[in-house]
Amino acid sequence: MSDHFTGELTENGHRLVQRVYYEDTDFSGAVYHARYLHFMERARTEFIRCKGLIQSESHATDNPADAVAFMVGRIEIDYRRPARMDDVLTITTEPLRAKGARMVLSQKIHRGEELLIEAQVTVACVNGLGRPRRLPESLL
Amino acid sequence: MSDHFTGELTENGHRLVQRVYYEDTDFSGAVYHARYLHFMERARTEFIRCKGLIQSESHATDNPADAVAFMVGRIEIDYRRPARMDDVLTITTEPLRAKGARMVLSQKIHRGEELLIEAQVTVACVNGLGRPRRLPESLL
Amino acid sequence: MSDHFTGELTENGHRLVQRVYYEDTDFSGAVYHARYLHFMERARTEFIRCKGLIQSESHATDNPADAVAFMVGRIEIDYRRPARMDDVLTITTEPLRAKGARMVLSQKIHRGEELLIEAQVTVACVNGLGRPRRLPESLL
Amino acid sequence: MSDHFTGELTENGHRLVQRVYYEDTDFSGAVYHARYLHFMERARTEFIRCKGLIQSESHATDNPADAVAFMVGRIEIDYRRPARMDDVLTITTEPLRAKGARMVLSQKIHRGEELLIEAQVTVACVNGLGRPRRLPESLL
Repeated sequence: MSDHFTGELTENGHRLVQRVYYEDTDFSGAVYHARYLHFMERARTEFIRCKGLIQSESHATDNPADAVAFMVGRIEIDYRRPARMDDVLTITTEPLRAKGARMVLSQKIHRGEELLIEAQVTVACVNGLGRPRRLPESLL
Repeated sequence: MSDHFTGELTENGHRLVQRVYYEDTDFSGAVYHARYLHFMERARTEFIRCKGLIQSESHATDNPADAVAFMVGRIEIDYRRPARMDDVLTITTEPLRAKGARMVLSQKIHRGEELLIEAQVTVACVNGLGRPRRLPESLL
Repeated sequence: MSDHFTGELTENGHRLVQRVYYEDTDFSGAVYHARYLHFMERARTEFIRCKGLIQSESHATDNPADAVAFMVGRIEIDYRRPARMDDVLTITTEPLRAKGARMVLSQKIHRGEELLIEAQVTVACVNGLGRPRRLPESLL
Repeated sequence: MSDHFTGELTENGHRLVQRVYYEDTDFSGAVYHARYLHFMERARTEFIRCKGLIQSESHATDNPADAVAFMVGRIEIDYRRPARMDDVLTITTEPLRAKGARMVLSQKIHRGEELLIEAQVTVACVNGLGRPRRLPESLL
């Protein structure tokens, strides 16, 4: 019963479906602009889970030098149209480049066929000491 | 594919399953205490959706006097044990009393068999002018 | 220039002033109900800072058994009236009881003279291993 | 006593000082990446307040065609270094271009002398019907 959270791997990446709740909206009536970053972060978390990586575990190794954590390095995000309360959103994640300690992902949010958000997110892989480390094999 | 959001009606109320993400945690390592109110609000939203009420629609009638909105009037919440990143939480919602413009719900959050949160939430029904109004029939 | 954050100790406790921003509101036009817990948590953080305790430091001792952290154990909160975008809120914190590992605080949120929120918050003191520990002297 | 919220106009724009609280952090120990957008939004709100524009009022004119609202159109954000619990952050806002219905702002977040965040934010001015409208004179 808990499976649907993880979304699903697709030909080019991953797809996750999420609902908009009260907490996501602001008094303008639309979704607060920073909340789209939450939806995209949930999608990245589930994408790398599908790749075999559970972040609460990979953070917590005995030797911090072996830990695997991800930090957002840069985001470019275009707000095309606003999402609203009760909307069902599909978040797609597609790796564009992955090399060394860094990967660049294309993330989009649709409501049905309608494109709401387009973003490019650069993620850096670090160990438990905050030092850059090579991405896990499954992500390269 | 979007069905799983709504959770399911149970003998006594409703059950919703949700994942804990980065956004829900704080630097203590556990879930930030106010975030449990988000999980419970999502559950109430889905519970009343199962009862036929979609809040983005019931807010937006032509005549504000006919609108149906809900406001939290009081919460008592006991924090039994902390939830953590990646946890899968089950939120149960059971109406205790519903009369006139007011209903009292018992809401609990479990991780598997383990009880994390116990709360009692009083919700008031108002119209679009902020005046108390009778709860919709389906909730009485 | 950074002083105003900390609010000020009063005869009975502490007072902090905060602004409502977009992020605090939802599509109902008022402040999202869980956000009042954020305002109250900021007030508690500043109150105990005024008492000499900086949480980012007290969490991070060499010996976890000596660390001092606080966990919310229970909240009772009554929502009297809604706050709105741009409102300036005064959060007052008054200790009601403090004994052993536990203190109970009365917290209120006013907009000018108008009472919006009334709450009673039970906070437990734990060490870095999550075990109950005696409250620091300055809070007893 | 409520004046410090508004920050201050500077030669090139505006400066606002804010504290990092529990709510801003995540289990990695640092500030959650989406929260920097909140700090920047607070700074824009106070910047335009200093320019004479109060958003809760400009949204709520009798005639929606006259209303003034702002929507984020695009953000480019670089995460240089993480902020942490209790940090005091300075958010600076400098208009780069403002023309017609659109302005582009440079926003930076420093902790003391240290640059943490660098962003470029495009904001569109719309009326109450969601149509683009000319920026208020004070912002041109």
